[in-house]
Amino acid sequence: MPKSPTNAPLDQYASDAGQLPVTPNDVKAAAAAIAGSVIVTECDRSRTLSEICGCQLWLKFENLQFTSSFKERGALNRLLALSPEERRRGVVAMSAGNHAQGVAYHANRLGIPATIVMPEGTPMVKIANTRRHGAATVISGKTLEEAAGFARTHGKAESLTMIHPYDDPLIIAGQGTIALEMIAAVPQLEMLVVPTGGGGLISGIAVAAKALNPELQIVGVQAQLYPSMYNAIKGEDLPMRGDTLAEGIAVKAPGAITTGIIRRLVDDIVLVTEDQIERAVAMLIAIEKTVVEGAGAAGLAAVLAAPERFAGRHVGLVLTGGNIDTRLIASVLTRELAREGRLTEIAIDIVDRPGQLAAVSALLAEASANIIEVSHQRTFSDLPAKGTLLEVVIETRDRAHLEDVMKRLGEAGFAVWLPGRR
Amino acid sequence: MPKSPTNAPLDQYASDAGQLPVTPNDVKAAAAAIAGSVIVTECDRSRTLSEICGCQLWLKFENLQFTSSFKERGALNRLLALSPEERRRGVVAMSAGNHAQGVAYHANRLGIPATIVMPEGTPMVKIANTRRHGAATVISGKTLEEAAGFARTHGKAESLTMIHPYDDPLIIAGQGTIALEMIAAVPQLEMLVVPTGGGGLISGIAVAAKALNPELQIVGVQAQLYPSMYNAIKGEDLPMRGDTLAEGIAVKAPGAITTGIIRRLVDDIVLVTEDQIERAVAMLIAIEKTVVEGAGAAGLAAVLAAPERFAGRHVGLVLTGGNIDTRLIASVLTRELAREGRLTEIAIDIVDRPGQLAAVSALLAEASANIIEVSHQRTFSDLPAKGTLLEVVIETRDRAHLEDVMKRLGEAGFAVWLPGRR
Repeated sequence: MPKSPTNAPLDQYASDAGQLPVTPNDVKAAAAAIAGSVIVTECDRSRTLSEICGCQLWLKFENLQFTSSFKERGALNRLLALSPEERRRGVVAMSAGNHAQGVAYHANRLGIPATIVMPEGTPMVKIANTRRHGAATVISGKTLEEAAGFARTHGKAESLTMIHPYDDPLIIAGQGTIALEMIAAVPQLEMLVVPTGGGGLISGIAVAAKALNPELQIVGVQAQLYPSMYNAIKGEDLPMRGDTLAEGIAVKAPGAITTGIIRRLVDDIVLVTEDQIERAVAMLIAIEKTVVEGAGAAGLAAVLAAPERFAGRHVGLVLTGGNIDTRLIASVLTRELAREGRLTEIAIDIVDRPGQLAAVSALLAEASANIIEVSHQRTFSDLPAKGTLLEVVIETRDRAHLEDVMKRLGEAGFAVWLPGRR
Repeated sequence: MPKSPTNAPLDQYASDAGQLPVTPNDVKAAAAAIAGSVIVTECDRSRTLSEICGCQLWLKFENLQFTSSFKERGALNRLLALSPEERRRGVVAMSAGNHAQGVAYHANRLGIPATIVMPEGTPMVKIANTRRHGAATVISGKTLEEAAGFARTHGKAESLTMIHPYDDPLIIAGQGTIALEMIAAVPQLEMLVVPTGGGGLISGIAVAAKALNPELQIVGVQAQLYPSMYNAIKGEDLPMRGDTLAEGIAVKAPGAITTGIIRRLVDDIVLVTEDQIERAVAMLIAIEKTVVEGAGAAGLAAVLAAPERFAGRHVGLVLTGGNIDTRLIASVLTRELAREGRLTEIAIDIVDRPGQLAAVSALLAEASANIIEVSHQRTFSDLPAKGTLLEVVIETRDRAHLEDVMKRLGEAGFAVWLPGRR
């Protein structure tokens, strides 16, 4: 039986875990501190995703925070702990993403000067969003590490307080408030699946959740391309590299404080592939009508990747953020259609004489395939000079329908093949 | 001063408007009937959209209903009024969209056999979604009108009750429950902006809202391509044609009952262009992280098109539905990037010798423009045989940045131009 969250004895657990640098009461204090300035987001069951995954899936919509991510919680909790003198001097933070916006927005709201250091190559939208919240931005360093170095040096020189994105007890306690809200809203939760980068979110959640219900399982999720915390916890040495859609959790150096908490309280960490992350983003758009960035969809990706592990359980997923470039959304959705066999480029050899396109079009219409794009290719094909390559992008119901369309074209005498998925 | 919605004397208004076919008490009864089976969706203020529009914008998230549209409300209210004998025999409805899913889902839930007639060419996703909710689907008729004709004939032959998508007092009363929820959540609302097709939604909303607060202005929105209710109310004869993103309100024949109510209670009907609808869909994704179909974004489109009309007021928008094909989302987002000057295809004449692409790439990098796609075009350009056309899709911050990039390329001696927006 899950305990009632409202009356749960947070103190009892605190004494068991006395040596941890963040206690359940720290999370409770953070919840009181940030109340009213951070949205208590919905935690709703998704009926359709529950059916698809074979478990009871509860979604915590942190992508609907004002700056579109949970990072506001920790940032605000940290800012509220500044002394009057520290407030006056201001803060500095290094982040190319959600932490930047969280710090900028709440610092501005509290009248605290904020400088955000971002590495070169940070997407323009993210720079603009951070400026819009009233922060000064400095672009410096080729990598996150170099940018962090600059932020430290600059902060020291200017006597600014550094607001770390995750390795700080106040940040961790702030992020942990999510668990209090989820368990209060859905006491029957049995597992929480939490995207994991530097570890601030999952360690805060673990501290709070295990205090309320020690039986509640906490599973971290990392992108397979950046298994930093996975390596640290499992003693592995998997490589870290590449360009992940989940850049929000692509952290090479997990925190020292966070790693200690995770080692003690988190049940497991799993890895998800780029394909699985993309698919999860696409499903949240198509089914839940909600826009979640790659890192924010990692929890759903993990459940889709290994449904047997979650079968029949009440599973809480934190949709951590919604800051995904619209160009990426467009590309993820198009690729998902291709994966599902719903949008396909087919190539057809035809002899270059009038009526051939009409014949192909008629066959496609008869087979109920929609034509999306057509191009003739005369120059670069392998065909004899009189031949033409016709490339057609078609929309079909699914893979079986696509195969039926291909078969019909073949039976009508056309040489047809798939030149590659887009 | 707006009246308190909970204690508002609905009966008083009913007597004033005695001759209307739908009374405020009908809406109240509908609310009681459907309670618990339809989601009381959130009605939240959007801070960012409010700033952009210069008014207080409140969004009613009907796109987050289980079948992703408000149509469930009317459909369920109608189904609940069937006699036991009518329930046993079953229902028929004609719809290529949200009404189909609303009827299918609730009929299935109530154990009522449902047949949905859809015209030829209905997108496959919509057919599949309707079947998934347990309804029999019949594809018949080249137009909505022909499909409706078939549904009537088939319904009569099989003794099925026809569930009209809008021109039915019980449907209208069901849709009107949205107004009760909005005014209860946000008593200070001064205007409601409502997407309008056949008129079921806006007439129900007008009946309920004007009873609670006669000062509350009701503004309908139609797509400029399908100004049917606009024509009916204003005595105009604007043409109806074309392919609108807002197919959910592309209705040629407004209802007789709905038109009567609208004539009496609705303050105005305005038209929005396709560009305005597309931009509203893109903004709801980028800012609100929510997926809304074209018709559902028509209200925001209307406010963006004429902000002076709404300036400083508390304005409620009904985001009516979220059923938009993922392929369309991708295309809307890409076109919006192009409109904003953030994604642009530029063409550059270069002499066909090694190093030219490298020179262009270096210039673009220096100007902080990201290269998204590159293609060489040797065959079809107007250039002499030794020349090559280089087409590059670049990402820039905004239009000013794009102009700066073009200027730099020009100054470096390249002939550069915009072959057309994608």
